[in-house]
This record gives sequence, structure tokens and C-alpha cells, in this order.
Amino acid sequence: MRAYDVILKKRNGGKLSKDEIEFMVNGYVKGDIPDYQMAAFLMAIYFKHMDGEERAILTETMANSGDKVGLSSIPGIKIDKHSTGGVGDKTTLVVGPIVASLGVPVAKMSGRALGHTGGTIDKLESIPGFRTTLSEEEFFKNVREIGIAVVGQTANLVPADKKIYALRDATATVDEVSLIAASIMSKKLAGGADGYVLDVKVGSGAFMKTIEDATELADAMVGIARAHGKRAVAVLTNMDVPLGKMVGNSLEVLEALETLKGNGPEDFTELCLNLSAWMCHLAGKGTFEECLKLAKESLDNGAALNKFRQFVEYQGGNPDVVERPYDVLPMTSNVTEFKTEMEGYITSIDTEKIGIASNHLGAGRKTKEDTIDYSVGIEIVSKVGDYVRPGDTIAKMYVSQKSEIEEAKELLKESYVISQEKPLERPIILKVVK
Amino acid sequence: MRAYDVILKKRNGGKLSKDEIEFMVNGYVKGDIPDYQMAAFLMAIYFKHMDGEERAILTETMANSGDKVGLSSIPGIKIDKHSTGGVGDKTTLVVGPIVASLGVPVAKMSGRALGHTGGTIDKLESIPGFRTTLSEEEFFKNVREIGIAVVGQTANLVPADKKIYALRDATATVDEVSLIAASIMSKKLAGGADGYVLDVKVGSGAFMKTIEDATELADAMVGIARAHGKRAVAVLTNMDVPLGKMVGNSLEVLEALETLKGNGPEDFTELCLNLSAWMCHLAGKGTFEECLKLAKESLDNGAALNKFRQFVEYQGGNPDVVERPYDVLPMTSNVTEFKTEMEGYITSIDTEKIGIASNHLGAGRKTKEDTIDYSVGIEIVSKVGDYVRPGDTIAKMYVSQKSEIEEAKELLKESYVISQEKPLERPIILKVVK
Repeated sequence: MRAYDVILKKRNGGKLSKDEIEFMVNGYVKGDIPDYQMAAFLMAIYFKHMDGEERAILTETMANSGDKVGLSSIPGIKIDKHSTGGVGDKTTLVVGPIVASLGVPVAKMSGRALGHTGGTIDKLESIPGFRTTLSEEEFFKNVREIGIAVVGQTANLVPADKKIYALRDATATVDEVSLIAASIMSKKLAGGADGYVLDVKVGSGAFMKTIEDATELADAMVGIARAHGKRAVAVLTNMDVPLGKMVGNSLEVLEALETLKGNGPEDFTELCLNLSAWMCHLAGKGTFEECLKLAKESLDNGAALNKFRQFVEYQGGNPDVVERPYDVLPMTSNVTEFKTEMEGYITSIDTEKIGIASNHLGAGRKTKEDTIDYSVGIEIVSKVGDYVRPGDTIAKMYVSQKSEIEEAKELLKESYVISQEKPLERPIILKVVK
Repeated sequence: MRAYDVILKKRNGGKLSKDEIEFMVNGYVKGDIPDYQMAAFLMAIYFKHMDGEERAILTETMANSGDKVGLSSIPGIKIDKHSTGGVGDKTTLVVGPIVASLGVPVAKMSGRALGHTGGTIDKLESIPGFRTTLSEEEFFKNVREIGIAVVGQTANLVPADKKIYALRDATATVDEVSLIAASIMSKKLAGGADGYVLDVKVGSGAFMKTIEDATELADAMVGIARAHGKRAVAVLTNMDVPLGKMVGNSLEVLEALETLKGNGPEDFTELCLNLSAWMCHLAGKGTFEECLKLAKESLDNGAALNKFRQFVEYQGGNPDVVERPYDVLPMTSNVTEFKTEMEGYITSIDTEKIGIASNHLGAGRKTKEDTIDYSVGIEIVSKVGDYVRPGDTIAKMYVSQKSEIEEAKELLKESYVISQEKPLERPIILKVVK
């Protein structure tokens, strides 16, 4: 087989066989196929796409390129959650404890901050002592004993995706649905769960800007999961505004705790309950409606909060964070208020710019080697639909000495759109793809 | 400027600016832009194409990447001929002397054999003593004194094309009209003529299989020439059958000589007269019809043949080749007849296979370093439209000890299609694009 012929076949709109896809992916990972042929191949896929079978094969081939986690030693149906990346997305911190408290095992690998979006692992590490690297033994022990463990991705998780993603990023071939779906689902498959709840973000702060595009991606991911005998549901959620009110690491842990205590923002609480309910449903705990009721009860009776405390303790973090978060979490009292000069309704908030502004304050990384300042971030005081007047504080910046405050302020200014027309309310859950 | 953004723009169907095209081509030649980005860019062009302006800029940028020949010191309007490559194409050997005898200066760089097609330079070198490498001084002196010189391409002619073509060849991005046209026309522009007659081959033995595709390429090339203030005509010619009856180096020189003596095959003679007439017309020697008459006279009165003799002599070849070709040219008396086992009309001859068969006999190169056996080749005895019976010799193989006769025979067998239906006659000149 020659790479040339496989490129040509895809370029001409042909359907690739298992052999051909494996030849390309494995050959590329091994270094037998050069970057330039892979780049041409990816651009051909960009234009001619892949059908469901090709996507399933591509995903499996990528998943098989590195380490795979076997969860079969853990009893019960393991359901993983994945979010396509958002600003202020701390759902795992709430959903994990809820479903674990309901008897659905959570054995999860999570990612770090990437670009303008935050990462669950970084947020957890803002809790003093919290270890996101566990031995395999410890990981399984925690899941068996308390039903939950969350760790960072291993270095050799889907090396094919790492290599291909870097090339896509340099050749303008990132935004093709088969490639996005295979990239995400290969990591999910390698993670070893029995099913997936996929939180697909839609809107200004997300990769997918429209419901149509997000539906296409959701269909692709659910299709890949099914092709491998896995259960799957995709929930399309609104990322036209940041999720909740807090953006930044300690700040998001704080908000997650508030939510677990029943005092969280309405949109974020609703999202967490929905995702938890779908996870429980896929795990066989009842209908979606029954599971939604169970999830609410877990929040109301404190079971989820207790599970969070246990989870932190088991991974070496200070469990007092639950009762005294302001004492335990790295926080700053250095707060700069951002006031508006305009009057009217907030009609939109550019979520991506909020994420970048938060990075300017020090909450993210510019390079892989950068360290994160857990204490800084942004609080969205006024959200879409609020009526504001000149001089009103619409956001707060939690800053440190290293924060680039002026840059962040400029981005905050650009991100808020204020007009005389009251915006339509958009629900947090836009659509469910089963 | 970033290569990524230019790739993205073309991928999204955008029109590239002069700066962007120069950035990509010059950056690639210098090595600043890696192969993989160029490969993605070429595949994006494959799908989104280039308009007339982009093509003209691409061609010019490529032409400027290396040495350029200045022909302004030669008086008169210099018209170059280009053929898109064919099997048995020895037109330059006839057309060059005809137009030179009519006062149109021929200052030509030609190529060597490539793949299944032969090269003018190799054919000329089959004449003992003939030198295809001349000093610049000698080249111009010959054109000034006798009106004709033909040399091999300099090493540094359009290095951008060499590098980009090698990449296209490995990434399935060869057959896109803008890229083909720019590749051809960049070498023509660098060659310095005032106008071009472009012989675009159409059919089984050519790059362009249909008249539609060939017309598109012809339009693109003529458009590029015009955009640079050059005169141009494209002639679409039939390459469903090999041109003339001879394929191979000495054999083609022999056939060219027969044609210059007025005894050539009808199709080949007609093509040579037409191309010569278009060249003279572009050079301002009269209407096409007047020029066609002049070209015929040049053949009839021996002026073209004399010019060929002078041309050979001036480049160091043995001029006796004109009177005693069988004595002077490397020939073989080792001839294997290829007989058919079928009865019927020859309805088609796969020209590409004939070219490959000729290479198996030793007439071409497998690698750049291979030497050519000038004496070997194929004679097409029976052509399309002929009625043949079992046992008839339909082709002859001129072979040497190194010839792979069985492979050639197999290809000859495959290339002839014989059936009961008399095929439609197809003219040699299919269309003219002005």
C-alpha cells in the first residue's frame, strides 16, 4: 500500500477501508509516512469528509496507538462525561460527586487548560494538597472505595491524536467534524468507560458556533460510540455566556462548592443536574426523569457535598475546603471592579474574550511550561438580560501583581454588548442528541 | 504573515493577494515554510482552485525563482512552442527547422524523457556528436546566424517548480489546472520568448483525457500568457494514438527526417504544418492561412530540410544524418515483429502503454541516472482504423540485448483494441484556443 494512493482515494471522495486508515494512522505515528503526506491527507478529509464507518475505524485506530485504561475490574456501568471545552466550565467538580453519591462509579481522566478554556485538573490543583497524579492501584482503590477518582491524562494516552492534532493546528485542518469527533472519542475510548455523556458547547465561547454545527458533531460522536458498542448521549449547551459567574481556578472551585450546597447560579445548577441525570440514566439507574429527581435529592440532602469532601480527602487535598473555602483556597483580596459607562440591557458577552482576559490576569498558561496563579480570575457580576446603568460594576477582576490588568480590562470592555433591546432568554440546555 | 492564514484563506475559497502567493512560494523555496504546510496549501488549491489573476501571479513568482533567459538581443518576435508531453512526439525536430527557415527565430530550451513520454533533448542526442549544452554565447550566436538553437534546460530554471512538483507528485495534487498551467508557463516565461504556441495533447496517452479538461488547461495557459503581455495560441491535438508511427529516439529522428523530406505520416505532417503556421502567425508573418501556405512551401522546396542540416551541424552533430540516416544514427537490425491473433478493425491504441513498452525496450529512463539506448523503440505498423487479420504484423520492436521484450510484448497486446466495428476517424487537430 502507498500513502499516495490513499490520499488520492480520499481526495476523489472514496470511502477508505480499515486497512487504509490503519496504514495511514499507524504509519504516521511510526514516522514511516512523512508530515507532508499526512497534511495533504487531512486536507483531503477536510473537503471530502468521512462516513460513520470510516470515523469509527479512525477513532479506534487512534485509541489503539497508546495506553488504554481497563475499567472492567470496577463493578457497575462506568459512564464518562466529556465537555468540548468552555469558559468557566467546572461541571465535573459538581457532576462527579452527584453521580458518585448515586452509585455510578466515576473513574475519570481530565485535561488541563488549553487556549482560552480552563481545565478541570488545574481547578482541582488549586485545592492545597490535591494530587491529580495517582498510581494505577490508588486510582482503582479510590473508585472502589468511594466511587470517584479524577486524574490527569497519562503521557501516552492516544499519541496518534497528539501528533495529528499538532499537524492539523499548523495546516488549517482542525475544524472538520470527523477529525474533531475522532480526536475526542479516541481519548474517550482509551479511557475505558461503558458509555459517555457528551456536553457539546455551542456559541461564541465554543468551538461550534451554531446549533447545526454542534448537532453534526454530536451525531458524529454518538455514532462513533455506538459503533463501538458504547452507550452515548450528547447534550448541546449554551456557551454564548460563560457558565456560572466565576472564571478562574480557586474561584470556580468556590462556585462549585456553592452549587453543591444548593446556592449555585441557576444556569450552572441546571446544567449539572441534567448531565448527572443523563449519566445515571445511561448507567441504568432509571429513566431520565427519575434520575433527574435523584440528582436533585443528592444536592438537597448533602450527599453530593459529602462525596466531594471525601473525594478531596482521598486525593490528598485539604477537606476543610468544603466548610472554609475562603481560608483554604488561594484567594486574593486584590479586586478591581469593572464598571460600565453605558445604560441598557446586556445583550451578549463574548465568552472567548472573557477566557482570554482571565488568562491575562494569570489564570491560564501562555506556554506549556507557564505556571498558573490559582487565586486570580473574573467574576461576572451582571449577566445577559441584566439592565445596567453607567457606573454599575458589571464584573470584578481578582488580580495579582503579575496580572496584565489593562489588557484584561480592554477585553472585558469588548466582550460586553449593551443595547436598548432586551435580549431573548436562551436556555442552558439547547438540545439532546441520543 | 503566517502560512497558516494563507492556507486557511485558500481552504475557505478566498482569493489570494500577490503578497500572499509570493510569501508561500518564496518561503517554500527558501525553506522557511515546511513541506507539510505547502502540501496542505496545494490540496486546498486542488479543491478551491485559483482565478486568472492568482494563476498569473503564481506563474510569475515561480518564474522569478531562478535563472531567466533574456532573448531581447535577438532581433524579431521570438515564438516558443510547448507540448504537454506525448508519446512519439518529435514535432520540435520538424517545426523548429520549418519556422527558422521562414525567418522566425527559434531559441529553445527543451526537456528530457519523463515517465512514459520521450524528450526532445534525448532524441537530438541520438544524432552522433550533437551537443545539447551550449554556452550562452554559442546559443545566441547560433540563433543569430542560422535562426535556430535547441538546448537542455539549465539546472536553475524555475527551482520553485522543481520543488513544488516533487511535493505534488507525492501528495496527489498534480492534476489541478492552475498548478499544471503555472508549472508549464513559469518555465515558458523564464525562457524569455514573446509568444507561445501550446500543443495540448488530449486522449489516452496524455495528461488530459477529455477535450473539456484540455480546453480548461488551454484557457488557463493562454490566460497566463496574456496576463504577462505575451501572445499565445493553444492547439488541442489528438493523443489517443501515438503521433506518427515511430516511438524511440533514433527512430523518431528518422521519422522527422522523412517528414522534412515530404514523406512523413499524414497526421504528424499535418500537426507540424499547423503548429508552424501558428508560430509564424504569432510572429507576425501573415494570417494563419498565409503562414500555413508558407510552411508547406518550406517543406516542399527543401528549405526546412536544409535548415535541419545546418542546425545539426551548428550544434556539433553529424550533418550526414540528413542524407544517410541509417548509417549515421544508432540503429539496430534486431527487430521482433508483433503479430495479432485477432481479426477486425483497430479501434484504439493505448498510447501510454506504448510509451511504457518502448521504455521496457530501453528507450527511456527508470531513474534520472539511467542511460538511454538510442537504437531501440517501437514502430506502429497498423494504426487506428486499419483492418487486420490473425498473423498480421501490427507493430515492430527494435530491441537490444538489454530489452525486456516479454514485458513490452504484453503491453503492446494490452494497448491494441481490435473489434468488428470500424472506428470513427478523429482528426489530429481537435480545437484551437486563442
